[in-house]
Amino acid sequence: MRVYDLIYKKRQGEALTREEIKFLIDGYTAGDIPDYQLSAWAMAVFFQGMNEEEIADLTMAMVESGDMLDLSPIKGVKVDKHSSGGVGDTTTLVLAPLVSAAGVPVAKLSGRGLGHTGGTIDKLEAIPGFRTDLALNEFIENVNEVGVAVAGQTADLTPADKKLYSLRDVTATVDSIPLIASSIMSKKIAGGADGIVLDVKTGDGAFMEELEEAEKLARTMVEIGKRLERKTIALITDMSQPLGYAIGNALEVREAIQTLQGNGPADLTELSLQLGANMLLIAGRVGDFQEGYNLLEGLLQSGAALEQLGRLIQAQGGEAAVIEDERRLPQARYNVPVLAGEEGYLAAIKTKELGLLSVEIGAGRARKEDAIDPAVGFVLEKKVGDRVQPGDTLLVIHANNGDLEGIKERARKAFLITAEKPVLTPLIHKIIN
Amino acid sequence: MRVYDLIYKKRQGEALTREEIKFLIDGYTAGDIPDYQLSAWAMAVFFQGMNEEEIADLTMAMVESGDMLDLSPIKGVKVDKHSSGGVGDTTTLVLAPLVSAAGVPVAKLSGRGLGHTGGTIDKLEAIPGFRTDLALNEFIENVNEVGVAVAGQTADLTPADKKLYSLRDVTATVDSIPLIASSIMSKKIAGGADGIVLDVKTGDGAFMEELEEAEKLARTMVEIGKRLERKTIALITDMSQPLGYAIGNALEVREAIQTLQGNGPADLTELSLQLGANMLLIAGRVGDFQEGYNLLEGLLQSGAALEQLGRLIQAQGGEAAVIEDERRLPQARYNVPVLAGEEGYLAAIKTKELGLLSVEIGAGRARKEDAIDPAVGFVLEKKVGDRVQPGDTLLVIHANNGDLEGIKERARKAFLITAEKPVLTPLIHKIIN
Repeated sequence: MRVYDLIYKKRQGEALTREEIKFLIDGYTAGDIPDYQLSAWAMAVFFQGMNEEEIADLTMAMVESGDMLDLSPIKGVKVDKHSSGGVGDTTTLVLAPLVSAAGVPVAKLSGRGLGHTGGTIDKLEAIPGFRTDLALNEFIENVNEVGVAVAGQTADLTPADKKLYSLRDVTATVDSIPLIASSIMSKKIAGGADGIVLDVKTGDGAFMEELEEAEKLARTMVEIGKRLERKTIALITDMSQPLGYAIGNALEVREAIQTLQGNGPADLTELSLQLGANMLLIAGRVGDFQEGYNLLEGLLQSGAALEQLGRLIQAQGGEAAVIEDERRLPQARYNVPVLAGEEGYLAAIKTKELGLLSVEIGAGRARKEDAIDPAVGFVLEKKVGDRVQPGDTLLVIHANNGDLEGIKERARKAFLITAEKPVLTPLIHKIIN
Repeated sequence: MRVYDLIYKKRQGEALTREEIKFLIDGYTAGDIPDYQLSAWAMAVFFQGMNEEEIADLTMAMVESGDMLDLSPIKGVKVDKHSSGGVGDTTTLVLAPLVSAAGVPVAKLSGRGLGHTGGTIDKLEAIPGFRTDLALNEFIENVNEVGVAVAGQTADLTPADKKLYSLRDVTATVDSIPLIASSIMSKKIAGGADGIVLDVKTGDGAFMEELEEAEKLARTMVEIGKRLERKTIALITDMSQPLGYAIGNALEVREAIQTLQGNGPADLTELSLQLGANMLLIAGRVGDFQEGYNLLEGLLQSGAALEQLGRLIQAQGGEAAVIEDERRLPQARYNVPVLAGEEGYLAAIKTKELGLLSVEIGAGRARKEDAIDPAVGFVLEKKVGDRVQPGDTLLVIHANNGDLEGIKERARKAFLITAEKPVLTPLIHKIIN
């Protein structure tokens, strides 16, 4: 088999066989196939696409390129959730304790934030003492004892995906649906998931800005799940404005706590219940979606979900008292309001711009090696559709650096205020299974 | 400027500016831009193409990546000829003495053969003693004194093209018209040409098998010539069967000598006169094509062109007596006929297959580092349209290895014999200027 022929075949729009895909991925992982051939192949995939069989084969080839987490010592169906990345997306912090409080084990591997989107590991590390670097046996023990564990990746999962992603990142081949879908699904499968609930975001703050593209991605991933025998459901959800009010690590932990207390933002609460109910359904914990939804709503109201967050924090070395006293979370020195200058309705929020601004004040990373400040970020006071008067606070900047004039100005410009009441975007566009 | 953005821009089908193209090519030549980014860009070019301005800019960026031959010490308009590669294409060996005998200086840089196509440098080196490694001053002196010199490249011409071509060769991005056209034209311009006559071949033995593609390539190169102020004419010519009868280095030298004696194959003679007349026209030596054609025909008949070949050989250290005694050329030990098995008309010749077979018996190279045997090759006895009887010789194999059963069998199969007389393909399909 020659790499040249495989690039040529894909360039001409033909499908590669399972053996050909495995040859490419294994050779690339081992360093036998050079970057310049894989990047040409990836660009050919961008233009010619892949069929469903190829995408499933690529996914498995990447799974098999490294370790696969063996979660069999954990009883029950292990259901993972994946969100395609957004601004102020705190759902994992809500879902992990909520779903495990319903008796479904949650063994969750999460990542760090990069660019305008945050990452669960960074958020959890805002809790004093919280450890995310669990060894595999500790991770499994915690799930068996507490019902839930959330950790960063330690095992060598999907090295092919890591290498290929880094290459795509510098060769303008990231935004190819077959490559995105196989990358996401390979990580979930290598992470030991029996079933997967996908939260594919669309709108200004999402990777897939267009609904049509988000739907294609969702359908592709659900199809991979079918072919590889992992029950998969995808929700296409709105990221045309930040989810909840908080953007920033400790600020989002606080918002997750409020949500688990039953006092969270309506959109974050609703999305958590919808995703969680689908997780219970896939796990076989409930017979239908509504039963799951009602069960989880009860766990929020009873305080059982919040208690479960306390246990999760305790088990991973963190200060569990934060669930009762939010002042134990890192606090920023300055709280600076950004005010509206005009009257009308808030019609749109430049969500990606707010994500990028949050990176500038230290809440996220522009590059992988950057340090972050857990205390800083933004808290919105208005959301799309709200009535606005001049002088109303649009958002509060939480910062440790007082020089905020440029940030304030750009943050203000991220809010579009119009005379007419805007048509609201639904929180959940579609469910695909 | 970021390479990523330039790849992305091309991927989206936008045109790059001159500065952007220069940035890419200079950075790549210097080693600052890695192969994996250029190969992704080249694949994006394969799919999105380039506009005429971009192609001219790419050509000049490659010219400027290295030395440019200064042929100003040679008086007159320097006209180069380029053939896009074929099987048994002996025109340069005929044209160089012929055109210079008409008083137009010929300062020709040529290459070696690779794959199924031969190269002029290999053919000339079949002449005992002939040196092709002339230093620049010697090359120029020879043109000024003799009127003609043919040498291999010694200066560092178009290093960007060399590097990019090697990369395209292993990433399935060779057959992109903008990249082929700019590669050819950059070499001609860096070689000091004031005007260029292009022989773009089409048919089974050519790189551009389809006439339509050959025409696109020809038009693209003529347009580059216009934009970069080099008078350029392209002839689209037939390579559906070998040109002349000989395939192989010494065998083609012999055929060139016969042609310069006025006894050559009709197609080789005609194509040489057509290309040569266009060279005289571009050089301003004649007022119109027909005048040039008649002038060159006279030089063949008078023996002046043959004498000029003798001077060229003499000046470059070769045994000039070969022009009177072909037995001074390397001779193969075996001359084995391949016979027809059926009656009918020769309808087609698998030209590429014959080129590849000639490599197998040692007349050409599969890889750059392979050695060649100047004596070996094939001499056709039938061409398309000829009547064939069982037992007629189709071709004679000239070989130094006696084990030829497999070669004979495959050579026989390269000749398609039908009951009906085939429609003949014209030698010259189109002239584009």
